[in-house]
Amino acid sequence: MGELDLIRWIRTRGLPGARRGLVKVGPGDDCAVLAGQGTGWDLLLKTDGVVAGVHFGRNASAGLVGRKALARALSDIAATGGEPVAAVVHAALARRHAGRWARELQKGLARAAGLWRCPVVGGDVSATPGPTTLAVALLGRVERGRALLRSRARPGDRIFVTGELGGSILGRHLRFDPRLAEGRWLARRPGVGGAIDVSDGLTRDLGHILEESGGLGAELSAGMIPVARAARRMKGDPLGHALADGEDYELLFTVRPGRAGALVRSWPFRTRLTEIGVVRGHGSGLWLRENSGRRRRIRPAGWEHLITA
Amino acid sequence: MGELDLIRWIRTRGLPGARRGLVKVGPGDDCAVLAGQGTGWDLLLKTDGVVAGVHFGRNASAGLVGRKALARALSDIAATGGEPVAAVVHAALARRHAGRWARELQKGLARAAGLWRCPVVGGDVSATPGPTTLAVALLGRVERGRALLRSRARPGDRIFVTGELGGSILGRHLRFDPRLAEGRWLARRPGVGGAIDVSDGLTRDLGHILEESGGLGAELSAGMIPVARAARRMKGDPLGHALADGEDYELLFTVRPGRAGALVRSWPFRTRLTEIGVVRGHGSGLWLRENSGRRRRIRPAGWEHLITA
Repeated sequence: MGELDLIRWIRTRGLPGARRGLVKVGPGDDCAVLAGQGTGWDLLLKTDGVVAGVHFGRNASAGLVGRKALARALSDIAATGGEPVAAVVHAALARRHAGRWARELQKGLARAAGLWRCPVVGGDVSATPGPTTLAVALLGRVERGRALLRSRARPGDRIFVTGELGGSILGRHLRFDPRLAEGRWLARRPGVGGAIDVSDGLTRDLGHILEESGGLGAELSAGMIPVARAARRMKGDPLGHALADGEDYELLFTVRPGRAGALVRSWPFRTRLTEIGVVRGHGSGLWLRENSGRRRRIRPAGWEHLITA
Repeated sequence: MGELDLIRWIRTRGLPGARRGLVKVGPGDDCAVLAGQGTGWDLLLKTDGVVAGVHFGRNASAGLVGRKALARALSDIAATGGEPVAAVVHAALARRHAGRWARELQKGLARAAGLWRCPVVGGDVSATPGPTTLAVALLGRVERGRALLRSRARPGDRIFVTGELGGSILGRHLRFDPRLAEGRWLARRPGVGGAIDVSDGLTRDLGHILEESGGLGAELSAGMIPVARAARRMKGDPLGHALADGEDYELLFTVRPGRAGALVRSWPFRTRLTEIGVVRGHGSGLWLRENSGRRRRIRPAGWEHLITA
């Protein structure tokens, strides 16, 4: 049962136990959105985990693993336009990770908490005979009604992405900065449509936006995709890596056509911002326009998880 | 590194990243307490996990495992006097649990969510080569300033426990009801002191209250301990099981001596309520008064985790 099956299951059966009006957005978006009754804020709730051997390798530094575990969940808060309030961490520790490694992990978590203003206010530690598994749950908040959602794209929207894509397995997947400031800024701009963070790979995450927005299509311009230097150091086509590799943790979002120019002009960050395509109508599929002008139909594809040595 | 080491570590180093006034209670209590600014509520945040082979056995029904995973975290909300708002679940699934078992797990979670009004608003699923591990994170809330805490016991307080203790390994550890209504009621009563849920075992959890309240002592009356029928079916001394077995998930709390009588008289629940002892002064240790009248010094002891076959 994959994540999507789980989401489908929950959607089919509703949300047992939900109090009326409290759950604004349930499972299936980057964060759940809850009404922060009587305040100017909505609350965001998210959990995200890393498993040794799946999300980090045997030789990864414990400090960077702690940083990554927090940053992955923060990236979802960023993609929702929110700011973090607090985190709780569940650690199932393998025996070999129970001593010095666990202390280094804590230091990495603490440094990351300070860096991104997300205090770790609680934790639970179990021993496990299996691989070390960390689950980070985050509480965040966003101005009431301003959460960025996957489901808000419309035909004609311009598609934007921050930063550069591909080859994050060479190291960036452990050291990225969640785009919190950029997400906060986007949540306050007019004209932003669907939004997500690039964790499964560009085409797959764009697929999530299009699917959640009612089965829309899109056309990407191959020559516009911001290919990371790391993608060029990988075996195979650098553009393919930029389109399909996972764990970029950049923001992918759409903007109403009449708002795109002003948004680009007023973008206040050093983080690169690139217009990479346009949203098309319902059922029109996903297309890549090559530099030759030829259009090629592509399938959303990506990596569920990075496998590192 | 056990949970207590982790808590000590965080306390020594403070809470990096905490915004001023936002974190009212950090790591080390049953839940973190966060200021719900501008509302009449404080927010509660908690994570708690179960690992296959540690917290549930190979033959445990997936539906009951889902129920238990949610109920364990809810028990901490109950011990803080709060009500649940929403849950998110991280599931690292072993291959043998990826199909029908995972669907049964979902059903168990959904039934529990409906029963206790705690909608599961998000989830994350990973595959793991190790044992299935579930981490549940809960957002809850409690009336501002009314959270029940471990640290509020005082010398002279009477010690109370709900329900019956011991032998939960024979089945109750999978089927217990978190004492949410009882906790809500206690949070509104005058005179309640320190509070915790009995997860590590009565003496050990009482030890947490005494330690967090400044190193107080206590005297328990052996004849008053409510011994569960299951404890009598276990090998060994039933009272020993009631004192030391874990996973009872009852509420253990202290009440100012002048308020104890009124609290007992107005207790509106069918759940049994028993006065089991009295809090003593700083450094006086933990004592058990036997039926003969003899006082015996005991050590806080209990099980970190239930090992089931």
